[in-house]
Amino acid sequence: MAGNIFGTAFRITTYGESHGHSIGVIIDGCPAGLNLSSADIQVDLDRRRPGQSAIVTQRKEGDKVQILSGVFEGKTTGTPIALQILNTNAKSKDYSHIKDKYRPSHADYTYDQKYGIRDYRGGGRSSARETAARVAAGAIAKKILEKEGIVLYAHVSAVGAVKLLKSDAKDRSIVELNEIRCANAARAEEMIALIREIRKQGDTIGGTIECVLEQVPVGLGQPVFDRLEADLAKAMLSINACKGFELGSGFEGTLMRGSAHNDAFYKDASGQIQTDTNYSGGIQGGISNGMPVEFRVAFKPVATLMQDQQSVDSKGGQVTVTGKGRHDPCVLPRAVPIVEAMAACVFADHILRSRLDRA
Amino acid sequence: MAGNIFGTAFRITTYGESHGHSIGVIIDGCPAGLNLSSADIQVDLDRRRPGQSAIVTQRKEGDKVQILSGVFEGKTTGTPIALQILNTNAKSKDYSHIKDKYRPSHADYTYDQKYGIRDYRGGGRSSARETAARVAAGAIAKKILEKEGIVLYAHVSAVGAVKLLKSDAKDRSIVELNEIRCANAARAEEMIALIREIRKQGDTIGGTIECVLEQVPVGLGQPVFDRLEADLAKAMLSINACKGFELGSGFEGTLMRGSAHNDAFYKDASGQIQTDTNYSGGIQGGISNGMPVEFRVAFKPVATLMQDQQSVDSKGGQVTVTGKGRHDPCVLPRAVPIVEAMAACVFADHILRSRLDRA
Amino acid sequence: MAGNIFGTAFRITTYGESHGHSIGVIIDGCPAGLNLSSADIQVDLDRRRPGQSAIVTQRKEGDKVQILSGVFEGKTTGTPIALQILNTNAKSKDYSHIKDKYRPSHADYTYDQKYGIRDYRGGGRSSARETAARVAAGAIAKKILEKEGIVLYAHVSAVGAVKLLKSDAKDRSIVELNEIRCANAARAEEMIALIREIRKQGDTIGGTIECVLEQVPVGLGQPVFDRLEADLAKAMLSINACKGFELGSGFEGTLMRGSAHNDAFYKDASGQIQTDTNYSGGIQGGISNGMPVEFRVAFKPVATLMQDQQSVDSKGGQVTVTGKGRHDPCVLPRAVPIVEAMAACVFADHILRSRLDRA
Amino acid sequence: MAGNIFGTAFRITTYGESHGHSIGVIIDGCPAGLNLSSADIQVDLDRRRPGQSAIVTQRKEGDKVQILSGVFEGKTTGTPIALQILNTNAKSKDYSHIKDKYRPSHADYTYDQKYGIRDYRGGGRSSARETAARVAAGAIAKKILEKEGIVLYAHVSAVGAVKLLKSDAKDRSIVELNEIRCANAARAEEMIALIREIRKQGDTIGGTIECVLEQVPVGLGQPVFDRLEADLAKAMLSINACKGFELGSGFEGTLMRGSAHNDAFYKDASGQIQTDTNYSGGIQGGISNGMPVEFRVAFKPVATLMQDQQSVDSKGGQVTVTGKGRHDPCVLPRAVPIVEAMAACVFADHILRSRLDRA
Repeated sequence: MAGNIFGTAFRITTYGESHGHSIGVIIDGCPAGLNLSSADIQVDLDRRRPGQSAIVTQRKEGDKVQILSGVFEGKTTGTPIALQILNTNAKSKDYSHIKDKYRPSHADYTYDQKYGIRDYRGGGRSSARETAARVAAGAIAKKILEKEGIVLYAHVSAVGAVKLLKSDAKDRSIVELNEIRCANAARAEEMIALIREIRKQGDTIGGTIECVLEQVPVGLGQPVFDRLEADLAKAMLSINACKGFELGSGFEGTLMRGSAHNDAFYKDASGQIQTDTNYSGGIQGGISNGMPVEFRVAFKPVATLMQDQQSVDSKGGQVTVTGKGRHDPCVLPRAVPIVEAMAACVFADHILRSRLDRA
Repeated sequence: MAGNIFGTAFRITTYGESHGHSIGVIIDGCPAGLNLSSADIQVDLDRRRPGQSAIVTQRKEGDKVQILSGVFEGKTTGTPIALQILNTNAKSKDYSHIKDKYRPSHADYTYDQKYGIRDYRGGGRSSARETAARVAAGAIAKKILEKEGIVLYAHVSAVGAVKLLKSDAKDRSIVELNEIRCANAARAEEMIALIREIRKQGDTIGGTIECVLEQVPVGLGQPVFDRLEADLAKAMLSINACKGFELGSGFEGTLMRGSAHNDAFYKDASGQIQTDTNYSGGIQGGISNGMPVEFRVAFKPVATLMQDQQSVDSKGGQVTVTGKGRHDPCVLPRAVPIVEAMAACVFADHILRSRLDRA
Repeated sequence: MAGNIFGTAFRITTYGESHGHSIGVIIDGCPAGLNLSSADIQVDLDRRRPGQSAIVTQRKEGDKVQILSGVFEGKTTGTPIALQILNTNAKSKDYSHIKDKYRPSHADYTYDQKYGIRDYRGGGRSSARETAARVAAGAIAKKILEKEGIVLYAHVSAVGAVKLLKSDAKDRSIVELNEIRCANAARAEEMIALIREIRKQGDTIGGTIECVLEQVPVGLGQPVFDRLEADLAKAMLSINACKGFELGSGFEGTLMRGSAHNDAFYKDASGQIQTDTNYSGGIQGGISNGMPVEFRVAFKPVATLMQDQQSVDSKGGQVTVTGKGRHDPCVLPRAVPIVEAMAACVFADHILRSRLDRA
Repeated sequence: MAGNIFGTAFRITTYGESHGHSIGVIIDGCPAGLNLSSADIQVDLDRRRPGQSAIVTQRKEGDKVQILSGVFEGKTTGTPIALQILNTNAKSKDYSHIKDKYRPSHADYTYDQKYGIRDYRGGGRSSARETAARVAAGAIAKKILEKEGIVLYAHVSAVGAVKLLKSDAKDRSIVELNEIRCANAARAEEMIALIREIRKQGDTIGGTIECVLEQVPVGLGQPVFDRLEADLAKAMLSINACKGFELGSGFEGTLMRGSAHNDAFYKDASGQIQTDTNYSGGIQGGISNGMPVEFRVAFKPVATLMQDQQSVDSKGGQVTVTGKGRHDPCVLPRAVPIVEAMAACVFADHILRSRLDRA
């Protein structure tokens, strides 16, 4: 009801404000018997962490995860897994100057109106710091995908107008080797150059992330409302700064004729039914068809600028919001593990749910 | 779990196959005391119905809705409202010729693989006929929006490459006056002409629908996972043939700088806080900010063609799927009330949920 | 939220008022591939039906069930199964005389206060007629138990002070052979005699139903909140007129010492771990342990009497509620299939959920 | 799905094993604007804590609660409230000797069979220690009841055969003044004497707890499945060692005639509609009628004895389970705050849900 729980069979509940004691998550529904250590989770948290490269915020946060329950002698036990990340950077800093100011395109105004109170320190609950809990949960979800043989990855497919062309090669093995996390080295260079330029201006820029899941078993997803793509869309649009989602042919597919868009079935050499194109993006009737699941997610430019902006305070008086602190000029490289985490949660959920399909 | 239930506080459960006895929906959570008659519902069903204009399928289905429960002396009673639409067109026709064939880009293959059985008559549960139940439920949801003063409408903003330009005027009062349901008369003409052309070729075409909600109260939507846009995205992607969703600036917003994209707050003459632009699409931090909620939905071209197509049968053998029957060359005009219905269900749900925000 | 949905994996949503068009249920989450016909369901409905014997209400209702969806060629398809029972007995009778009267120990007053409106005809939604939808759903749930090898039955273990003693033999094969549905023929006679006596007085009487499930697999039930007995207790207390639930030793067990109450484990001849007593009632730590699950349910005397009673109307004015019509002097024999149905729904749910326990 | 989440609008998710890092709970759906400090919660935890009196276990655990999120400047903010209690007593003790033994009437066997793995240290997840998280959450729920004017209390109404008679006076102000938490001083003495006697024998004993809620507004509870008593029954049966639940007249009510059992309505001096008796226990048709809600809960004798018991190990071999350590001879006095907490959670949930009843 209050929006902090996600999933049905693999269900995560998160808590925590940017400058409180900690953030964390309880995973209810992780099956027993999976190998799990905090190191398995830390690797993804480190990919989301501030300060990891020159083009992201230089804030320092350790983001060390601790497993509080649900794991015994290195294995999941079927009981809830609680994960906690302390907010080591949450100092007794003075936030009173922003207490009543509504930063443009942030959630200050809407939270205040909704609840009549808000923890304004560092954005409180609306801070993107909350996504660390998702990344932690997603690392566990990935274990379930792995067991199923599914291969998942995301990468930055566009920063502003610099975007991968259809003719551009994609090499997923290089994604973690460049600061922007793009699967094409040349485009990665261009993207990084653009972000540097924009940062100099105290400005920010958006972009898109592409996510691909290969070796997906046929039959994941539930008709009618819990189609695989519906749950993916919800998962993505629940990420801070996300403004759009498209599956397979997406918005471009609206320009095509049905005769070109239909994915023709054929039997491959191994006797497996496949389609020769994949405009469906691996999902038909809400259910995976065995082809790669491919979707793209749009992220707006970060709302926090290193520029002064005009706004109002809680009384409607005009105020200036000054740009200071250490912020991301572009959220995309750090959003890659978040997109992966949410995709993994959706798939883990549907893998489990599909066990109930047949008597 | 099995995907046929939508919503949290305003919860709908649908049933029914294309060629079974009927389709229907139970609404659990409609508050008591709303005026409701079957005529209120029928008006939207008639907008979704086949055969209503020259550019949609000429199948004849009455789609008469009957209220089975939950309404007494013209008012909702707080108990479940069951709605039923008989499948009058479901003849004892012979479907055995398509029984084992997998139509391209339909759900035949995935349902068969998932369940090991499928009702192949007219697409069974995966038929778009299922959306009639949503439209019926949505008509009730609209009553809740109405009471809140929210004004909702959708219209076709693109068919193939014919799309509304930013400079094009939009007049919502003409949407129901043209066959394609577009808010611009000139573009409507072009769209209709394009669809006619495509139908002659036995082909199909996609497009986009824009949906706008005005006079939305501030504070709808729940952080973190049940953001208003996340629930809208799920709702839209759960509609047959939908391939994408974008809110406000959407995918185009990824090209903008933060300094241009941020919506500056100001106090208007009446003392109300507003923003001067609305790239946020009326939602900030997952919560409505009082500006119009604006989103767009991408629909792929209809998969059923009036052309022969190569495919496989359930044994992997090569077969020809022949184009016959009466189908839509473009799903867009009939999808307008479906988009509205799902948007209304999401808003009704969040209107009710927002009653719990404060002690 | 609004209380008309039950279950998690095997989820039922019911609708319908006593004197509306029909009552019914949608089952979402029934696995594909089960054999199912309306006859399978009718058999249990006939056991719940009015007019089946001399000691229950003589109202005539056909209670014929129709399967509207989710079954194809005699098998479940994995899509929602909608069941409908028409209210053939719902005449255009004049109910205006009871419209404003609050019948003692009925739901007239509470519904009116809660919703500000109520369908007063025949009790509306609060009528026990609603349980027919549960019995119908339960008949499908039983199919899932059957597949698992579970044997389920309930019988009347007490009517007023006439109750089965521990020394009384129980023969489940005779339950359907006597009007009261008791597993002991001699006690059945006494119970029937008591009910006849009470009916003559225009009065009513309560009693208890015992329910037993044998050959239950080890491992059903979920800690912490969704223990098998917790879900059973909720299921039972959701039945009209139910006032209590106890598992295994129940309230009597509070008198015992731990040394006597503990069920000692031993390995039986076949190598299976068993317990020598079963005070636990087949459930330990919320999870079935392979011993028979045994619980008892208390039903109060029926509130509708064939006597005049003093009460108030909606304005608080004093009124007389006159006893007339055809009502049950004792709800127990007709409640047996209801208890079974709800137990079956709980077990079907947990059978499915247990598929997710291990990776 | 996996059973560690309770409630709908006021939703709690717990985690933690007896000997892990900590136990805790996330509350999602607590409205904004309630005054809340950790001291508000600590008071109830101290009532549940081991070592508080001579008749309970002498284990020492601080059970200090920490609020990790969702509270800002002394008020709830509408975001999730995470509470944590460190397991300070969880030493690096050697548990290997019980690792493979199945203690009689504990959950060792069922957990092992269900999950194939279990954290055997101190009972792991099945330990009653888990209920501390419920008590913490319940303390917050009580704030919501308080705001509504509801007065809630529980007390021990029976220990073994020593039980409150109908003629015994009840004084809720003395409940916290005696070690057994009974509302009658004389019976309290007898109960305490009985427990001391039983402890000397290394044995344990059960009993019942009565819970009463006064000044309950009319209209709480949802038909059909989420009746107030159904949710209460589930809440109670989800507590360790609970074997039974009864509302109002309960099992004894089955002996009564309807003419005696019906609660006659009348208008009191203040114009309020009341009933002259309260066999209904304050709930009619699943909805509170304004009379006190009264129910009783049965607890079996504690399974852990200070006596040797015969049992089996995980291979089915015969073993002796020796009685040692510090355990409760009777769980009742410490269960009083647990019963209150679960009742408070159910009522908080239904208070919030009732806000959606009317348009």
